[in-house]
Amino acid sequence: MAKELKELTTREENYSQWYQDLVIKADLAENSAVRGCMVIKPYGYAIWEKMQRALDDMFKETGHVNAYFPLLIPKSFLSKEADHVEGFAKECAVVTHYRLKNAADGSGVIVDPAAKLEEELIIRPTSETIIWNTYRNWIQSYRDLPILINQWANVMRWEMRTRLFLRTSEFLWQEGHTAHATRQEAEEETIRMQGVYARFAEEYMAMPVVKGKKSESERFAGALDTYTIEAMMQDGKALQAGTSHFLGQNFGKAFDVTFIDKDGKTDYAWATSWGVSTRLIGALIMSHSDDNGLVLPPKLAPTQVVIVPIYRNAEQLAEIGNKAGSIIAELKAMGITVKYDDADNKKPGWKFAEYELKGIPVRLAIGGRDLENNTVEVMRRDKLEKETISSDNIASYVKNLLDDIQRNIYQKAHALRASRTISVDSYDEFKAKIEEGLFIMAHWDGTPETEERIKNETKATIRCIPIEGDKTTGRCMVTGQASACRALFARSY
Amino acid sequence: MAKELKELTTREENYSQWYQDLVIKADLAENSAVRGCMVIKPYGYAIWEKMQRALDDMFKETGHVNAYFPLLIPKSFLSKEADHVEGFAKECAVVTHYRLKNAADGSGVIVDPAAKLEEELIIRPTSETIIWNTYRNWIQSYRDLPILINQWANVMRWEMRTRLFLRTSEFLWQEGHTAHATRQEAEEETIRMQGVYARFAEEYMAMPVVKGKKSESERFAGALDTYTIEAMMQDGKALQAGTSHFLGQNFGKAFDVTFIDKDGKTDYAWATSWGVSTRLIGALIMSHSDDNGLVLPPKLAPTQVVIVPIYRNAEQLAEIGNKAGSIIAELKAMGITVKYDDADNKKPGWKFAEYELKGIPVRLAIGGRDLENNTVEVMRRDKLEKETISSDNIASYVKNLLDDIQRNIYQKAHALRASRTISVDSYDEFKAKIEEGLFIMAHWDGTPETEERIKNETKATIRCIPIEGDKTTGRCMVTGQASACRALFARSY
Repeated sequence: MAKELKELTTREENYSQWYQDLVIKADLAENSAVRGCMVIKPYGYAIWEKMQRALDDMFKETGHVNAYFPLLIPKSFLSKEADHVEGFAKECAVVTHYRLKNAADGSGVIVDPAAKLEEELIIRPTSETIIWNTYRNWIQSYRDLPILINQWANVMRWEMRTRLFLRTSEFLWQEGHTAHATRQEAEEETIRMQGVYARFAEEYMAMPVVKGKKSESERFAGALDTYTIEAMMQDGKALQAGTSHFLGQNFGKAFDVTFIDKDGKTDYAWATSWGVSTRLIGALIMSHSDDNGLVLPPKLAPTQVVIVPIYRNAEQLAEIGNKAGSIIAELKAMGITVKYDDADNKKPGWKFAEYELKGIPVRLAIGGRDLENNTVEVMRRDKLEKETISSDNIASYVKNLLDDIQRNIYQKAHALRASRTISVDSYDEFKAKIEEGLFIMAHWDGTPETEERIKNETKATIRCIPIEGDKTTGRCMVTGQASACRALFARSY
Repeated sequence: MAKELKELTTREENYSQWYQDLVIKADLAENSAVRGCMVIKPYGYAIWEKMQRALDDMFKETGHVNAYFPLLIPKSFLSKEADHVEGFAKECAVVTHYRLKNAADGSGVIVDPAAKLEEELIIRPTSETIIWNTYRNWIQSYRDLPILINQWANVMRWEMRTRLFLRTSEFLWQEGHTAHATRQEAEEETIRMQGVYARFAEEYMAMPVVKGKKSESERFAGALDTYTIEAMMQDGKALQAGTSHFLGQNFGKAFDVTFIDKDGKTDYAWATSWGVSTRLIGALIMSHSDDNGLVLPPKLAPTQVVIVPIYRNAEQLAEIGNKAGSIIAELKAMGITVKYDDADNKKPGWKFAEYELKGIPVRLAIGGRDLENNTVEVMRRDKLEKETISSDNIASYVKNLLDDIQRNIYQKAHALRASRTISVDSYDEFKAKIEEGLFIMAHWDGTPETEERIKNETKATIRCIPIEGDKTTGRCMVTGQASACRALFARSY
């Protein structure tokens, strides 16, 4: 029965199907009636809330405040920054009318042709344009700078092929948009926020990331530099988990945002933008989960501990309930979220399978023998290992165990990446190895043409030029031209 | 200078202009480039975040979880519930295309006619339809019920005349959507959430509200009953601050959401929905603020205490800084948010005016004499009263003062409402009194026709039939027909 409940495709069988099964069966999200748009179900949304809270605290610690800008952007705004429009105008939802009316034949409602907008409005695919149009009125002097604003919002990019969390037409995200008086300050901000994202990924998601810069062709549309964090999924593919863009004065110029500097001279403001999205939930799932279901890092698990009573009769249940009650009180006092599941219409085996599927980090089971022996059965989800532990100090045992699980899944992911990252020098070897699902460090001549050729021939892209690591020069594996350092290549989500 | 900074129209002069000035000058929000859509600035958004946190906690305490449903709704969904479409189809943003392309003449981007949607999509004005379409797949048995879901989201209703926070085309809100197995349970939920809203309004916003039911013509489109909380603004007008709808089986039937009950019979699910929005920020402003600026209740003030040093030289500033530092540490330990403003490019007088404008509940000033005398100057924003207090136990003094301010502004608002609420029995008196800006309790024959006539002739509407209070029967002041109880009439926002 427990087996049937899950019916997950294994990762070995079909990684992509495993992912899709898991998102559905663990009740995280589902497709909606609107093509490409998902419904984020309560359990998936609870993970997002944990992510939001941690990120929001980190943004505020680094001096940012939240604000909210309009959902709709006048079409003409998109055209003001030449690269930006190329990147975003192609796939967006266009509002052309503002009213419906009853159909004359009574068949329902139709668009009222009299309510056509003079200028069409676009549902934001990202908000640089509307925000910089607003900043123009907020910035006159260097004293008005920096502006350090973040927005939590929904955005829409019309996608033809969608996958829950990883690529959907509508998604939730945060977008930071900052304005600065100097180039240096803006560049520092860009790198600071890449650092915040990396810290969040590693400390909260237990997901090791490579910090780097994007190549020119992979940059954000309108950016001078895009900094990224790239994570390896269990199939060896890369997932871009967060980006931070140095936008130079492009948006300052496009929207005429000038200020008087300390010396009384007029200059354009310098810009950054940075964002992470509900895509991170997909990354979280694919980093740690297994053929039994989700494996969640304790720091982001909506419920960290579940307690299941195993009882013969009402009297025994009451006794177990007493014992569980005091454990729950101790755990809560330590800030640990805990659920007690004494539902009587499900068997313990069903519950065990269900909580494995949901990725609850620690499961405690208490039965008759545990009452006699003053013990608790403890199961850790990451290793699926059971131990019987004395009830004395069980709470601090669990607290340490949660820390250990957080560390262990990080180390496991780190070890996987280490074992699947190689350096190659020949293009033939590259073509062979990329099939195995690896991160490959290779020399490249720095041209978009060679990058494009590699992409077309191998489906691998340059994920980033890593900031740390080997900086020795070499020769491009494809053209033999000089290369300043190795880039990280991989196939990606 | 301090005077110029504010330049607020007084409430007496022009209440509506005072409100608009205040929203702009206190940096809460502004109009955007998109007609009817506002930019919520960081200070305004910080108030919204405090509101969200308190409400979200209350929703979770009452068993609700959050989720997220699509922004876009297929046009045909709106038509499925007959009353609902009448209420919402008239003013909505319609997405008809999903791509832009470069204009042939190089003039910018145009809508790509090849990318026309088969069925138009509507930006959600409210989400009953898309959510109940989703619930159909979630509900099979009474065991799947209740579903107690809330969503934090943006919504859009095309408004012709907008006012910041009070009525904007896009606004932020939360919308609860619950499904139940019985009528009774759904009705209890509806009333429970009205109670949550009333408690939030009174305990957090310090805004007394009248709890009641809407008359038939003021009900939510698709509801059998709409429960409301109505607050009195300082000009005597009513503001609907939150509504909770009992939707019966209307959406269950419209979207074919059936379940098998305990007896094995099939029935349609029962629904409720309930929401409050960024409109509450407008209500908060208009409830308490004065001609010097905002007055914020301590429980929702982003910064509760500001400390301003008044110094002659750097040495004295350092001494004051030391003293302030220990006060700040004590206040923070009590969970009080405090800001220390030692900016040297603004004079104390300017800062005082600025923090009055921003409605910081308590201002502490520390000068040379305070160092000598071991004192602090304390100003409470609600009464604009200053006292000089010994530095010993200043933190607990401030804590009590914040509680006192929270109570005082509630009582002040409550007293205002009491002084401006009357009962009248003759329609002539009603017509005269309504001009004064009052809540009027009056008998009415219960028909939409009479209600409509009163509205046309006096601009007053039935805000609600209060749940508590006088339930004696009488005669309609207009038609003389029998009336079961008095309704609350007022002009409104």
